[in-house]
Amino acid sequence: MADSTNPTPSTPKIVVHWLQDSRAQRVLWLLEELNLPYEIKVYKRVNKLAPPELKKIHPLGKSPIVEIDNKVLAESGYIFEYLCSHYGSLLPSSPEKLEQYKYLLHYTEASLQPPLTIGFVLSSIRSAPMPFFIRPIANQIVQKVFDSYLTATYAGNFDFLEDWLKDGRTWFLGEQLTGADILLSFPLEVSQGRAEGFTQERYPRLYAWVDRVRGREAWQRAMERTEKDDGEMLRRK
Amino acid sequence: MADSTNPTPSTPKIVVHWLQDSRAQRVLWLLEELNLPYEIKVYKRVNKLAPPELKKIHPLGKSPIVEIDNKVLAESGYIFEYLCSHYGSLLPSSPEKLEQYKYLLHYTEASLQPPLTIGFVLSSIRSAPMPFFIRPIANQIVQKVFDSYLTATYAGNFDFLEDWLKDGRTWFLGEQLTGADILLSFPLEVSQGRAEGFTQERYPRLYAWVDRVRGREAWQRAMERTEKDDGEMLRRK
Repeated sequence: MADSTNPTPSTPKIVVHWLQDSRAQRVLWLLEELNLPYEIKVYKRVNKLAPPELKKIHPLGKSPIVEIDNKVLAESGYIFEYLCSHYGSLLPSSPEKLEQYKYLLHYTEASLQPPLTIGFVLSSIRSAPMPFFIRPIANQIVQKVFDSYLTATYAGNFDFLEDWLKDGRTWFLGEQLTGADILLSFPLEVSQGRAEGFTQERYPRLYAWVDRVRGREAWQRAMERTEKDDGEMLRRK
Repeated sequence: MADSTNPTPSTPKIVVHWLQDSRAQRVLWLLEELNLPYEIKVYKRVNKLAPPELKKIHPLGKSPIVEIDNKVLAESGYIFEYLCSHYGSLLPSSPEKLEQYKYLLHYTEASLQPPLTIGFVLSSIRSAPMPFFIRPIANQIVQKVFDSYLTATYAGNFDFLEDWLKDGRTWFLGEQLTGADILLSFPLEVSQGRAEGFTQERYPRLYAWVDRVRGREAWQRAMERTEKDDGEMLRRK
């Protein structure tokens, strides 16, 4: 676990334990924006899941894990909070926006991401191999979860974020990119073409925001570092 | 959204928008531990979901929502971060433990809670009314999600937390109760008797910790405030 006794250290030694096709990609983007050098240790998925080797780095074995001078950080929201407060700009300057920033770090991982994950898992059931007489029943069960919960939850989240950008701001907290944008990039990028109802027609500001994300040089540098190891998830453009 | 310009205000006016059978209960416990007076506005579930009235308070319409002097706070992890830093003790004193505390606020809502929620929803499918010829197939699909993902994820989380308490500490960050314990109380309480594999035999330290939670006078005062409105979820002892 980390400590905060040294708030402005010089160049740290950073290793990112990076799982292919995962939310770990945005940590690389964050490090590129912070101009911090880092190494990447690549992990390939086994049966779609994280391989057991990750448990040697942190007991939960989930990616991303970031080692900073041999301190081990896990949990995306916390990693972002730690890196931005210790090494960064990428924080909004006003106290009010700093509170919104902290809210978004919690919101992204705790409220926006989980229903998306549930939906992607359920959609994979739809396309899984199964006997022909089971498929219609499986589809019916999946559809029921969408109808009773997921479709409305998706729309609630996307409407909320689209509305957040209504005053024409470039990034979620104004004209300056912050860590909150970078954390939000994963759920919004993977939702394009995958999350029911998340269309460009309905959410033009969020689609334009994703285009701005992909236009950042630091985002592109992070992609280049992992292009050969990454799957399809983040390559759609 | 909140601002942080007034770090030690005098008694604020606090309203908790509280949904029955939900993670909102622990916010009341937090406020009791902080000795802050509060009002409760009760919302009953409609078809097991939060009622639309909550959207008038915050666009996402999820409980808990806390109004403090007309500032509206949502998202449990953020509400805890805000209340503890503005009004509280309930923070660990060492810099290292403060980092662990921040980690736990993110971890509880983003990694521990979501798979539990998925599991509880899937288990409710098992017991839902359906034609007899569909039930075995529905059960098989649910079991496959447990076997391929949930059972191992549950065990990973509970093992991690049980191990965290291995040095005989009373609370997660030592001898003093912190906001992290209060946030953790909801997933660990509801897991008793509901989460596959979460038994007293396997997790004696976590069960003893839940007993200590229920022994807090502030926890009991919070329960008394909502006893008549609460469902079964938190009343099992």
